This record gives sequence, structure tokens and C-alpha cells, in this order.
Amino acid sequence: MNIGKIITVAKRRGFIFPSSEIYGGLAGMYDFGPLGCLMKKKIENFWREFFVKTDNIYEVETCTIMSKPVFVASGHLKDFIDPLAQCKKCKSTFRADDLIKEKTGKFVEGLNPEELTEEIRKNDIKCPKCKGELSEVRIFNLMLGTNVGPVEGNLAYLRPETAAGIFVNFKNILNATRAKLPFGVAQVGISYRNEISPRHFLIRLREFRQMEIEFFVHPEKLNECPNFDRFADIKIKIFTREEQERKGKPIEITAEQAVKQKILPNQFMAYFLAKEFLWYQKLGIPAKALRFRQMTEAETPHYSAGNFDMEIEFDFGWKEVVGNAYRTDFDLKSHMKHSREDLSITENGKKVIPHVVEPSFGIDRTIYAILLYSFFEDKKRGWDWFRFPPRIAPITVAVYPLVSKDRLPEKAWEIYEMLKKDFDAIYDETGSIGKRYARSDEAGIPFAITADYQTLKDSTVTIRDRDSTEQKRIKIDDLTRILTQLVNEEIKLF
Amino acid sequence: MNIGKIITVAKRRGFIFPSSEIYGGLAGMYDFGPLGCLMKKKIENFWREFFVKTDNIYEVETCTIMSKPVFVASGHLKDFIDPLAQCKKCKSTFRADDLIKEKTGKFVEGLNPEELTEEIRKNDIKCPKCKGELSEVRIFNLMLGTNVGPVEGNLAYLRPETAAGIFVNFKNILNATRAKLPFGVAQVGISYRNEISPRHFLIRLREFRQMEIEFFVHPEKLNECPNFDRFADIKIKIFTREEQERKGKPIEITAEQAVKQKILPNQFMAYFLAKEFLWYQKLGIPAKALRFRQMTEAETPHYSAGNFDMEIEFDFGWKEVVGNAYRTDFDLKSHMKHSREDLSITENGKKVIPHVVEPSFGIDRTIYAILLYSFFEDKKRGWDWFRFPPRIAPITVAVYPLVSKDRLPEKAWEIYEMLKKDFDAIYDETGSIGKRYARSDEAGIPFAITADYQTLKDSTVTIRDRDSTEQKRIKIDDLTRILTQLVNEEIKLF
Repeated sequence: MNIGKIITVAKRRGFIFPSSEIYGGLAGMYDFGPLGCLMKKKIENFWREFFVKTDNIYEVETCTIMSKPVFVASGHLKDFIDPLAQCKKCKSTFRADDLIKEKTGKFVEGLNPEELTEEIRKNDIKCPKCKGELSEVRIFNLMLGTNVGPVEGNLAYLRPETAAGIFVNFKNILNATRAKLPFGVAQVGISYRNEISPRHFLIRLREFRQMEIEFFVHPEKLNECPNFDRFADIKIKIFTREEQERKGKPIEITAEQAVKQKILPNQFMAYFLAKEFLWYQKLGIPAKALRFRQMTEAETPHYSAGNFDMEIEFDFGWKEVVGNAYRTDFDLKSHMKHSREDLSITENGKKVIPHVVEPSFGIDRTIYAILLYSFFEDKKRGWDWFRFPPRIAPITVAVYPLVSKDRLPEKAWEIYEMLKKDFDAIYDETGSIGKRYARSDEAGIPFAITADYQTLKDSTVTIRDRDSTEQKRIKIDDLTRILTQLVNEEIKLF
Repeated sequence: MNIGKIITVAKRRGFIFPSSEIYGGLAGMYDFGPLGCLMKKKIENFWREFFVKTDNIYEVETCTIMSKPVFVASGHLKDFIDPLAQCKKCKSTFRADDLIKEKTGKFVEGLNPEELTEEIRKNDIKCPKCKGELSEVRIFNLMLGTNVGPVEGNLAYLRPETAAGIFVNFKNILNATRAKLPFGVAQVGISYRNEISPRHFLIRLREFRQMEIEFFVHPEKLNECPNFDRFADIKIKIFTREEQERKGKPIEITAEQAVKQKILPNQFMAYFLAKEFLWYQKLGIPAKALRFRQMTEAETPHYSAGNFDMEIEFDFGWKEVVGNAYRTDFDLKSHMKHSREDLSITENGKKVIPHVVEPSFGIDRTIYAILLYSFFEDKKRGWDWFRFPPRIAPITVAVYPLVSKDRLPEKAWEIYEMLKKDFDAIYDETGSIGKRYARSDEAGIPFAITADYQTLKDSTVTIRDRDSTEQKRIKIDDLTRILTQLVNEEIKLF
């Protein structure tokens, strides 16, 4: 896993650019170039197909700037914090827990600033940049604020999770949809965290993109998930607190058994975990690089009664990509208290405050994982390439004339014009066919169509399969149908 | 045009919610509920089909927070300003030019703060809220700032236009795509302006959504727009500076003639104007409510050598919905100077700095216009409803059982499950069929399918047309094909 090389290719081919780069960049911010943007939209749409349209879920899009009382109620202004240590000499800032973990291997989440300072002193930890002495550890809030309106002192905040806009709109959504429990509300959008020290490419970002679902459930019906049966038998891997404590390993268990044995708190949580385990494999991440880790008590966010986060094994180690939180009625209750609005639902004449199960997907981290596991340093072929699943490949099909003469370019262009109506397609006639294959492989384009001399005679073309490099001859009239089936994984070429 | 009623319906049915509402709201911020979110995505995708995929245009998605030097170079930190007057008594803030225009009808853009203060004194303008005395006019910058990172003083800004992320990435995009002039870069996303006084529902917002294209053109080939011929004969309405000055009216002229007569600065501008004029009609805005107004010199943004903004006639008057700016080489040149990066393109061995033609679409304003012109207070039918074009209607089809018994709900549900794979569909069995039609009309659902007793016998259903209320009987097997053709406006039901 050569992440340095992947980052270079990702920039060169237009997947990911460092943000504000011509002015030296901004730490923790990345932009999506043309290929990255196409892939991101396909991932989001595939997610909607797999997680939203399958259930009773409504999607919303709410503002990224929200008023201060929202985050008083959500607890973020108090609890959304990290411990900060600053170098007294070069003024660089670090997360104290990172520094301690790197020096000692110790896991120190949950310690207070005094205890962390003690650890730093005891282990003689210095500034990693200049070896200077570190300050005492202080608490730093990760919310980004901005003054809204022309009068000073009217501070609002950039949301740290899209969930905020869902909870605050709960009543409006309920009134508009007349939804019955259980139902979900989804949001795809940007969130912001003023990380002390951004790191690991697309992992710890200050501006990042999420796909979240808040699933609202009757508190007495937590094990009555409507579509659970479809996924009850899916085997998932759970790294429980007990296994973590005794340095064990994840257990393999079906979604159904995980609920029965009370490893997972409810059926809805098990339902999402099973689907996530399947979905990430469809994105090209192997099952062995996926696991659900039960967060320790100290790690669990302030709003959660239990987190089972989907982790992926990256080049630098395992890292959370989907946070799965059992938020109970924490959010609705707190917003009821602070806003004095009634956010309960009446069911059979009885008022209930729904419980919430929340899967929260990091889009950037997902794309990092896809790039990592799709990249193939291919000695035999002579070039490196991305093995993206056709469904999420930024460009689905490349169209080439065999040579740039004898009306082949015109014919190929005609085919390109036809295909681009239904697919993301490119036309390329520069260089030899071999060079064009190398370029399209590097962009992860799964299929290449070549118009050759035979095309002019019998209206057939060759279709080349990126993964096997094999070719078949098919009719132009069948192209759209065959490509559609290939993208939807209904057929295979070879 | 009963905008108050429309805003009420838009909230009640889940199109638009005031943001952070349960905490008193945030001025100039609105959220998209389930129906608004669906419609917004359809508008964006239709825009991509009509404006992006048709030309040599690449889409990107860049960060909303950008570093300070970006906006020094773009000129926004200096020139992105409005004149502010504050009430000395109640401390309310207002745009000085708004106040003067409302009192005197005078158009005062371009006056300096002293001259504006003079106007306020001369015309005895007071605070509209409390009649208090107004302060001297001062200049207020509309950029929203936020401190990035844990050290104070590292101010970055929320972008005031998505264009910023395109210009800063110009070189990266060029390297990645190997694009040849002319080509475009598009972005759909959020922008932010710290408006002094938000107003008019979705018009003057602090957080808003844009669809922008920066089209890069060889400065000597401004009249060599590749697809111009397809739209050269489209008649558009242009309200020139001359006509505005002599209180005249817009002239009607073809895109081609507008370039020939040097009313428009170049073919690319004319190309976009013609397409916009067509596209907004496809969204349901009548031609008579559309015009292009040439901005006066004082109004023209600092980066533009000429703006021809598409305006729509709203309930409160004409207002810009698409800004069309001929930005020349202003942005690339300025970023070259400030970043010291070479942002030129080599063509035939010669370096050129491309010129830019920019159509910038306001999504929120577009949705406002659609709601306004689709709303129908229907005395005859007995209920109000939205006449959305099927392509952008949030929900395409409703499925009903005629009655809630005799296996009709099961049959209707089966049809719903089939249709929701390809369409945004709802199932509804609550209340009489008449009440269900009223509800679906109000949500602007163009087609309703009813399963009745005959359905059980011969596998046919009725399809009801929202606009005519007429019905036809069709086979279940034909439903998907017919609905697809109806949405794409390939056939009409009645």
C-alpha cells in the first residue's frame, strides 16, 4: 500500500487536490477534482439506493451555519473538545493524546488535562518538530465559529455533524411527512471540525463530507426492525470491549445472533451494521479489512449510549469510517428542554420520545479507502491502475478510434456522443492504443470501446475489460444495454 | 401571486423550513425539507444535463473555507462591500442604498459613504423599525470569517462564490484533464455572504447555493463558440443600459443578432443567455417573466467587464437569478500575480491567459421562482396545488388502492415497490381518493396510479393527470415505460 504514490496519482489525474494550494494550502482541507467529483456523486447516489430508498427514510438538506443555542442543547459547545499541547518554543500545536500514544503506546482518552500534562512530563515528551518544551495541556473546543450579521457578538457555528440540522427540524419534518415510527431522516453534506492537528490525507479533516441517517424508533420496539430479516444472517466482525481489553480479536457472528447475545444494543443497530459490511465490499474493500469496534467508555461521544464503529484497515492502521451510535433520546430530549418545543410523537394516544440509531458515514474516508484498495501496482502490465467497481468508477467508458484517419475518428465520436447521454464517457485519440489503455486504466475506467476498420463494415466495435485486458466484439446497437448491465453487475464480460 | 400562502404551504409540505427555527431562527437561512431536497437535486441534475454534459465542461467540488490570500487576490476583501446604516436608538442595521431607494425611488449604487449619508439626511430617512435617527453610513465587508486551527489570528473565509475554488484550482484541473480551450469548469455548492439585511424569503440569503460555470476561452476566439449554431436563432429579451436610462423596455433579439450588433460582448455570453432563456421556461417560468438586464457601470461587480443578468419577475419586482459576467482575464491574472504561479495556457507555442465567461445560477432563487409560478389557487378544484414540470417535481408518482380492503392495498403496494426503483414514489391509503388527490396535487405530484377492482382481474390501473385531472387506464406492464416518457416530455397523457 503505497499511499504516497496514490496521493500523487490522485492529484495528477484530478481526484483530489490540496485546497487553496497555490497559496500554500490549508491544513486539513482537500478539494475534489473532476474525477473525484464524479466518483463522490456516484458513491452518494449508490448510498441513497442502498440505505435510503430501501427504508422509510426522508432526505433533507439543511444549513451548515446554525445558531448557538443549537449547540448548547446538543452538548457540543461543552463536550466537543480535544486536549491541546503547544510547543513553548516554535508555537506548534498538537493533540496531547496523540503525542502520548505515539511515545508510550498508551491509550489515554478520558484523562483530564492535569493527568495528561503529568503523562507528558513523566515520559519526557518534547515537541516533535523542534524538540522544544511543551505547555500544560488545555482543553480546546473543535467548533468553528463565525459572526453572523453586521453587529459583533452574534456568534453562530459551522455544524460539526449534519445530524444537528435533522434534530432541529424534527418537528417540521414530522408535520410535513406524517411519518410513522420507525422512520429515518438522512442528510448528505459538509461538516466542520477545527482539528488541532489534521493528518493522514483524507482522514482527519477540518472540512469534511458526511452521509448520515438518524433512524427514529419507538423506545419499546427497538427489536422490531421492519427489514431486519433480509440481513439477519449476514456475518459481521465485531471487536468487543472485552476482546479489546484482553488483546483478543474480533468475533464473527450473524447480525441476528449479535442481538440475541446482547452484543449489539438492538436490531436497528444490527441492521445497519450488516448493510455496511456488505456495502463496503461492493465498494471494493475486502471483508478482511473491515471490522466493527465497540468504543470504550472513554471514547464514546457524549451523545451516545454505545458506539460500534465500522473501521477499515488503512496503510497507517485501523480507523473509523462509519460511526454507529445508539443516541437514545439524548438529542430530542435535550432540544425539548432547551427550545421548549414538544418533540414527542403520539402513538396510540400515548406520547413517546423516539430513540435514535445513527449510522454516520465519512465520505472522504470512504474515498481514501477506495483509492487505497483499488490501486494496483501492476509490474506485468507496466503501469499502475485503479480497479474501481464499475458502479462507482468516475468514468464508465472510453471511446477510441483505432487510428486517427480513414473516418475512424468520426465513427468513434458518433459512438461517444451516443454513450455520453447515459454514461460518463470520454473520447481519446491521442497516442497509440496502448498508451490510451494505460491512461484509462490509471483513471480506473472499466470499459474501453474501439472503433476499427471492421466497425465501418458491420457496425460492431471491440469492448475491452480493464481488469482482464481481454476484448470482445459486440454490436453498436447492443452497447448501451450491455454497459448498463455491466455497471449494475448483472453480467460479467469475462 | 400570494407569496405568504406559498411560504406557508412550502413549510407545511416540507419544501422549505426556516433554519434553526425552534431556537428563533437565523435571518437569511433556510433549510430544504424532504420535498425541497428532492426538487433541488432534480434541478441540479437537469442543469448538469442541459449546461454541463452538452459542452466540454468538468465539474469539481472544492472546500467552502478558503485561505485569506485567495480573497486578497480575488478582490473580495477590498471590494465585496455594502453600505451600512445603523439605528442609533434600537441598533438595527440596514443597507443604506435600500433605505434611500425605498424612500426616494433613487438608484444610488456607486455613491460613497459620505454621499449616502448626505442622501439620508437630505431626505430625512429614519429607522424603519423605531423611527430613530440613523448613524453615518459606513462600509461593511460581506465576507464571513472563521479562525482555523487552535492559534488565534489564523483567519480564513467562507467563500462568497463557488468560482473561487475553480480559479485557485485552474492549474491542477488543466494538468489533470489536458483540456483544450475553450473548456469550462462547473461547481454546484454552498456560498456565504454576510448580508446586512436578509429579505424576500429565498432571495437575499446569508447561506445560499449556486451552480456556476467558468468557461475559459482564447481571448482572440471569443466569437468561436463551438455549439453556438444550435442556439443562434433563439430570441431573447435584453434590457440594455440605454433602454434603462430612457425608461424604455427590453429589446427582443436573436442570440446571433445580439452579438453582431455588439449588444452582447461575445458569442459565449450569447450562447449561455439563449440556453438560460430556454431552460427557465422548461422549469415552468413563462417567457414574459424573464429578461436579461445589462448592469449599469456602478452595479457591475469588480471582477466583471460586463454583466447581463437573467432576471425573473417576482411578486416584489424583477430580481437577478443568474448572473452572467464577462470576467475577462481578471481572476487568472490576479491569482498569477498574488500566487506567482503560471496560470497561462500554451497554444501553438504561444502563452495565453484565457478569458472567462461565467453564468452563475442561484439555486434558492430558482426554487423561489418555481414555487411562485407553479402555485395555482384553484377555486374550481377546491384546493391549491403546484403545477411543477414532471422532470423536477419532487415526487413523480403516487400509488393508491381505491379502498383499504379486498387485497387492493397489497396490489397497490406491489406496484409502489416496483415503481420506486425508478421513480420518486409514494404510497397512500389514508382518506378518500378525493382527499388523496388534493394532498398529492398540493405536493405537485404529476401522476397518480390507482389500483381498483378491475386491477385484480386484468392487471390494468388508472393513471390520473394532475393538470387536467383526467384519467386513463393502462397496463401495469407499461407503467415504467410510460412514466419515463412522461417525465422526459416525450409524450403527453392528455
